[in-house]
Amino acid sequence: MTEFRSVAAATGQPQGPAFAVHGPQDVAAACAAAADAFDAYRATSLEARAMFLERIAEEILAIGDDLIEAAMTESGLPRPRLEGERGRTVGQLRLFADVVRKGAWQQLRIDPALPERQPLPRPDIRLRMIPLGPVAVFGASNFPLAFSTAGGDTASALAAGCPVVVKGHPAHPQTGALVAAAIARAVAASGLPAGVFSHLVGPSNDLGAALVQDPRVAAVGFTGSRSGGLALAKLAQARGVPIPVYAEMSSINPVLLLPEALKARGEALGTAFVASLTMGAGQFCTNPGLILAIEGEGLDAFTAAATSAVQAATAQTMLTPGICQAYASGVTALEGNAGVETLAKGQPGEGTQGGAALFRTGAAAFLSDKAMGHEVFGAASVVVVCKDEAELLAVLKGLEGQLTATLHLDAADEALAERLLPVLEVKAGRILANGWPTGVEVCHAMVHGGPFPATSDARTTSVGSMAIDRFLRPVSYQNLSANLLPPSLRDDAFGDGAPRLVDGVLTI
Amino acid sequence: MTEFRSVAAATGQPQGPAFAVHGPQDVAAACAAAADAFDAYRATSLEARAMFLERIAEEILAIGDDLIEAAMTESGLPRPRLEGERGRTVGQLRLFADVVRKGAWQQLRIDPALPERQPLPRPDIRLRMIPLGPVAVFGASNFPLAFSTAGGDTASALAAGCPVVVKGHPAHPQTGALVAAAIARAVAASGLPAGVFSHLVGPSNDLGAALVQDPRVAAVGFTGSRSGGLALAKLAQARGVPIPVYAEMSSINPVLLLPEALKARGEALGTAFVASLTMGAGQFCTNPGLILAIEGEGLDAFTAAATSAVQAATAQTMLTPGICQAYASGVTALEGNAGVETLAKGQPGEGTQGGAALFRTGAAAFLSDKAMGHEVFGAASVVVVCKDEAELLAVLKGLEGQLTATLHLDAADEALAERLLPVLEVKAGRILANGWPTGVEVCHAMVHGGPFPATSDARTTSVGSMAIDRFLRPVSYQNLSANLLPPSLRDDAFGDGAPRLVDGVLTI
Repeated sequence: MTEFRSVAAATGQPQGPAFAVHGPQDVAAACAAAADAFDAYRATSLEARAMFLERIAEEILAIGDDLIEAAMTESGLPRPRLEGERGRTVGQLRLFADVVRKGAWQQLRIDPALPERQPLPRPDIRLRMIPLGPVAVFGASNFPLAFSTAGGDTASALAAGCPVVVKGHPAHPQTGALVAAAIARAVAASGLPAGVFSHLVGPSNDLGAALVQDPRVAAVGFTGSRSGGLALAKLAQARGVPIPVYAEMSSINPVLLLPEALKARGEALGTAFVASLTMGAGQFCTNPGLILAIEGEGLDAFTAAATSAVQAATAQTMLTPGICQAYASGVTALEGNAGVETLAKGQPGEGTQGGAALFRTGAAAFLSDKAMGHEVFGAASVVVVCKDEAELLAVLKGLEGQLTATLHLDAADEALAERLLPVLEVKAGRILANGWPTGVEVCHAMVHGGPFPATSDARTTSVGSMAIDRFLRPVSYQNLSANLLPPSLRDDAFGDGAPRLVDGVLTI
Repeated sequence: MTEFRSVAAATGQPQGPAFAVHGPQDVAAACAAAADAFDAYRATSLEARAMFLERIAEEILAIGDDLIEAAMTESGLPRPRLEGERGRTVGQLRLFADVVRKGAWQQLRIDPALPERQPLPRPDIRLRMIPLGPVAVFGASNFPLAFSTAGGDTASALAAGCPVVVKGHPAHPQTGALVAAAIARAVAASGLPAGVFSHLVGPSNDLGAALVQDPRVAAVGFTGSRSGGLALAKLAQARGVPIPVYAEMSSINPVLLLPEALKARGEALGTAFVASLTMGAGQFCTNPGLILAIEGEGLDAFTAAATSAVQAATAQTMLTPGICQAYASGVTALEGNAGVETLAKGQPGEGTQGGAALFRTGAAAFLSDKAMGHEVFGAASVVVVCKDEAELLAVLKGLEGQLTATLHLDAADEALAERLLPVLEVKAGRILANGWPTGVEVCHAMVHGGPFPATSDARTTSVGSMAIDRFLRPVSYQNLSANLLPPSLRDDAFGDGAPRLVDGVLTI
C-alpha cells in the first residue's frame, strides 16, 4: 500500500483525500533532519522559542473551520467538543510559551567556587537542564487535536528545545495534515530549520516501531492503548541506547462514594456519574469505569438513578470502527461474566455507535477476577458493592495504578477519607473530591499520569506545565569561563527573571 | 553456603567475622517491613526527617576508628582516603537534611479555583511530590562508605521519604555491618519503624536479583559495572510492574587537550594527568581513561611527561582480587591490540596490586575498534592522537555516553571549545575546564550522571542534592478540603519557607 484515506467515524467508509503512506526512508529522513536541527533549535533564546510556540497557536487558529470539520468527520466527535479541544490545544501552546519565558524549567543552579576551603578548594559548578534530543510523538485516537499533532507532548517537547517527529494517528490523517502544515508554517516564519518538526502517517504499526528504533530519537511520548504503549516501551528498552518512553495507557479511574455523601445525595450522584460516564461516548482516559461503595440505602438510590440514566442515554458515534468493536467486545464479556450483573444498557445504536452500559458485582467476585478491573474503553462502568470498610480497602489495594481516584464525601466522611488517602496516593496521579475525573485542567498543578499501567513512568505528567520536565536532563559545568558558559548560567544573566539556586538558596 | 567472610584486599585471604548469607526469605522480610514502614515514614515532618538524617551522620561518626580500620582492611584503600570518604558520607547526609528542611524538593504547586471562569470554572488543584516507595540500594565496591550502605543513594532515598533496603557489596560486609548498625540505632532513636532501613548481604548475585524482583520495591539505585547495571535494569523491566533503575555504570571520561593549552604547558598537563589517573589505583567512575588531542609538539611533551610519570608510579592494592584480575585482563588486551602502542607501564605490583598503564593510538584505529573505547576499571588510559579538528570531532561524536568530559584550554582555544561544547553536552553529564574529572563535589549543582551507558537514566544525578528527585513522583489534589490536603499544601502552610508555584508564579 502506498496511499491510504481516513474513514468517516459515522459511516465507517473511506473519505477525503488520499495520503502517502510513509515508510522507513521517511522515518530516517525525518529523524536525520530532527537531529541536524537539534543544536540550532536548542540554542534559540527563550523569547524566540516562546514566540515560535505562540506562532503555532496562531497558525492553528488561522486554519479556521476546515480544521473543525475535518476532525468532526474523522473522529465523529461533535462540533462544540472539537472547538473546545482546539481552544485547549492553543491554550496549551501558550501556556508552554509562558513557561519557556519564565525560565524555571532550566533549573539553574550555581555553586560558586570556594578557593579558600580546607582541606580542598571547591571549584565553580553550575547546572542547567538541556533538552534530550529529537522526540517521537504518537498522536492519540481520542483527542485529534489536544493529544495529537500539536498536542501536549509536541508542545512540551518543543518547549524543552527538542525537535519533534509526530507519528499521526491513522484515524485522522486529514486533521493531522492540516495541523502539521500549520506547524510547518510557524517553523518557517520563525526562521527555524525545517527539521524541527516532521509529521509521518500510515496505517501500519511498523511505522511507529521504526520511529522508536531510530538511533537519533531520544524519547517517546505516547497516548493510547496498554498493548501499544507496552510494545513501544519494549522496543525502546531493546535499543542499543535505551530511551525513555512516556506512555499514557490504561486506567479505570475508581470513584469512591463514601457513606454520608451517599446517604445525603445518592440519587443526584447517580445522575451526575452517568453524565461523566457518557461524555464523549466514554472515550476518555479519565472515564469513571469503576464505582466503589459500601452497601446500603444510599448506594441503592445511587444505583437506581444511574440505571435510569444509562437506560435513557442515547448511543454515540465512536472514534473508529475498531474502537467501537473493541468496546462491544468488552461489554459482551462483562455481560457474559457469571460474577457480574448487568444493571442497565443505554439506547441501542447503529453502525459505529456505542451505547452506555452499567454493571454491578461484589467485592469478593471483583477481587477474584482480574478481568473485571481491565479498562473497557467507552461508556461502561462497574459498581463494586463492598460489605464494609475492610472490603472497600481490600478492593482499593488490589487495583492497578490509575490516572485518577475520586472521593465523594461529606464532612462526616472525612475520618474515613483520611484512612483511604495514603492508599489513593500510592495508586493514582490525581485525587479528586466531589467531582468527576473527566475534564483534565491544563495548568501548573495538574498531574495526568500515575503508577503503571496508567502510564509507563509515574514520575511525570503528560498534561500541564510540569510535562516539560520529561524531555530534559541536567548538565553541570565546572570552572568554565564566562565566554564558554551557557548564557543563562553567566553571572551577567542574574536578574533575567529565571529562578536560580545559588549555593542552595533559591533566588528570583 | 550459609555464612561468608570478607577478603582482605591486600592478601586476598578471608578475614574478620563470618556473616550470615541472606536469602529469599530475608529479602521478602526486609521488603515487607519496608512496605509496612512506608506510610509512617513518609508522613514524618520535614524537621523530623532532617534530624533523622543528621542522627545517622552522628552515629556513623560515633563508630570511631573501627569503621576506618574495617574499611582499610576490606578495600585496601589508605586511611586518609577513607577518612575523607567518611567526611563525604556524613556531609552528604547533612546536605540532604538541609534539602529536606528547605522543602523545595516537594515542588509545591497551587492553582487556586476560578469559580467565575467561562465557559467552565476551574477547580482548586494542588500538587506535591511524594516518595515512590521502598528503594533497593546496591553498595559499590569502590566507595565502601560514600556509595554504599549509608551512601548517596541511601541518603537521597531516605530524604525523599522512601524506606531503603541495602544490598551490601560482598567485598566489605564488615564495614557495611558497622554502618548498618549505626543507621539502625538512628532509626530507633528517632522513633521510626525498624523497616525504614534493612541491610542484606551475601556473595551471590541471586540476592540482588531477588531484591529487584520483589513487588514491594519501587526503585533501584546502583553503582557498579555495566553488566551488573544492565542485568538489574532488565529484571526491573521484566517485572509485572516495571520500576526505575538508576544505575551508574561505565565511563571513560574523555579529556581533550586543546592546542594552545598543550603548547603552553604540555609537560605540566602530562604530570597532572597521571596524578588523576593513578589516584585510588584508578578505581573511580570518573577516572580519565581517554585523552584526545591533535598531534604536535605540545602533545609530544604531554606524552613524554605522562610516560615518565606512569613509569615511576608504584603499584597499588586494588579493591578486590576480582577487580585486580579484570584490570590485568583489560591491560593485557590493550597491549595485545595491534592498533595500540604501549607507552608506559607502572612499577610492577604483587598479589592484588595493580600498576598504571598508558597507551597510544590514532583516531582512525580508535574509530575502527569499539573495544578501545570500553572502560578498563583501574589506572589505564589511552591517548588518541588526532590529525586535526575534524578527526577530533569524529572521535568525540563516536563516543558512548560519559559521566564527564574535560577540556584543557587557554583563552586562544575558546573558539575551538565553543565548537566542541554542543557535542560534549550531548555526550556527558558534567563538563570541566582545566581540571581533572576525579573528585566529585557533593553540592547542589553537581551532575554525576550522563547518557547511556554512563548511566541507565541520563535524566538524573546520583551525587548532589538533585539526586533526591529520583525517588519522587507528582500527585495532584483537586478540590480537597483543608482537612484532607497534605499539610504542606494547605493555605496555612504558606510562609513555612518552602517555595511554591502559585498560579505559575514562584513565591518563597
